[in-house]
Amino acid sequence: MTLFDPEPPPVPTPTVRVRMTVAYDGRGYHGFAAQAGVKTVGGTLTTSLERVLRHPVAITCAGRTDAGVHAWGQVVSFDAAADRFDPDAVQRSLNTLLAPAVVVRDVEEAPEGFDARRSARSRVYRYMVVNRPVPDPFLAATAWWVADPLDRRAMALGCDPLIGEHDFTSFCRIPKGEQVPSMVRRVIDAGWCDVGEGVLRFEIEASAFCHQMVRSLVGMLVEVGSGRRRAGELAGVLRARRRAAAGAPLAPPHGLCLWEVRY
Amino acid sequence: MTLFDPEPPPVPTPTVRVRMTVAYDGRGYHGFAAQAGVKTVGGTLTTSLERVLRHPVAITCAGRTDAGVHAWGQVVSFDAAADRFDPDAVQRSLNTLLAPAVVVRDVEEAPEGFDARRSARSRVYRYMVVNRPVPDPFLAATAWWVADPLDRRAMALGCDPLIGEHDFTSFCRIPKGEQVPSMVRRVIDAGWCDVGEGVLRFEIEASAFCHQMVRSLVGMLVEVGSGRRRAGELAGVLRARRRAAAGAPLAPPHGLCLWEVRY
Repeated sequence: MTLFDPEPPPVPTPTVRVRMTVAYDGRGYHGFAAQAGVKTVGGTLTTSLERVLRHPVAITCAGRTDAGVHAWGQVVSFDAAADRFDPDAVQRSLNTLLAPAVVVRDVEEAPEGFDARRSARSRVYRYMVVNRPVPDPFLAATAWWVADPLDRRAMALGCDPLIGEHDFTSFCRIPKGEQVPSMVRRVIDAGWCDVGEGVLRFEIEASAFCHQMVRSLVGMLVEVGSGRRRAGELAGVLRARRRAAAGAPLAPPHGLCLWEVRY
Repeated sequence: MTLFDPEPPPVPTPTVRVRMTVAYDGRGYHGFAAQAGVKTVGGTLTTSLERVLRHPVAITCAGRTDAGVHAWGQVVSFDAAADRFDPDAVQRSLNTLLAPAVVVRDVEEAPEGFDARRSARSRVYRYMVVNRPVPDPFLAATAWWVADPLDRRAMALGCDPLIGEHDFTSFCRIPKGEQVPSMVRRVIDAGWCDVGEGVLRFEIEASAFCHQMVRSLVGMLVEVGSGRRRAGELAGVLRARRRAAAGAPLAPPHGLCLWEVRY
């Protein structure tokens, strides 16, 4: 039983709504969303859940991370048959099947109607940059190595215009062949933290994110830090509402992590 | 040109003695020491050095790490032809060839007679344990996951008998088919540090180490932490000078890191 069966049999009733927190190393996965023929986090989770629960499962996630992007606090919801549901046993069985690349940090019963995506108030993403002359083998999987010295003050200034409600078209990949959706998002907080030893961490909380928005913003902010762009340009780029206005390289996926989802 | 050529042509004279600090992610390497037919850190480094310097190179390392063991501060020495030697250029070229799995952190001219192995006063190894009920995808490459709660106080007590000069036969793999060498080593310091969020770090400094000594000690100390052995047993195990006396499982290689070499 997979997500791609044309008519999945229904989950045996009565059901419970389940909320699960999942961490994963995104390398080796073609993102979260299940796709036929490729290994995805969502596809792998669904297969394992169906094996453990012995009935079809349809999962919803809070944030559809792209290929190579990590998560520490991805949240997933689904329905399980109530008569055989034991949260601890499900967590243990899933971790036996999936760890260490994918780890289930928590499984609990959620209130009826809880939906990992629609119930979320906001998402927090983190992006790690290692700013040292030489790379680091132990951060290679989770941080973007930038050798040129970055001006932390300029990068901090560049965050200010992002806070608040804006149209982020300049920083988003527009889905092809569809009616163009709204790119208006509310950024609650955005800033850089100097973790020490040349490691810089960008953290951004928003109501929701457009596709490639964080990597696009980090690409631009690193241009600002390296002196190739000025922090003052960000407000203008936002106002332009054209992808070409940013013109900065997309930061690589492996530095990005869906850190937390707030409800 | 590799280490295995029967008669390597000499390094063009005059030469300079070079000291290099190297970090590596040990996964994917069959240890440091060059061996025919398998990928090793030393073999890979030698091949790259010979490509960059354009003459044969014979390297000496401070600590021959085992398969899967990492290093942050491995030190390597070798001779280079003096007329074309530029430390910064060598570092840049090697990192272009080798990073991010192997990273050259520093290259410098050393005094004549400097030998990475024989000149070393002591080596410092670190071993990381993640002691949480569920594993962590981002520490899976560098730490041993131990789910059962560990008694940190007992593990600290277990370190005391290790300090000083002892025969470590009970904690070492004896080389086969050779005259048994002395297993007497001087441990300068050994202890656990609680890094937070369930991460425990064992650090040990000694004049030198026998084969598998740190992993064997950590295996025993984790047995003590889990309550299966008592801290008081360590002194007796040391005195027994028999491998079977320890009887604890060897800690896995991926938690171990050659942290620093002191001269």
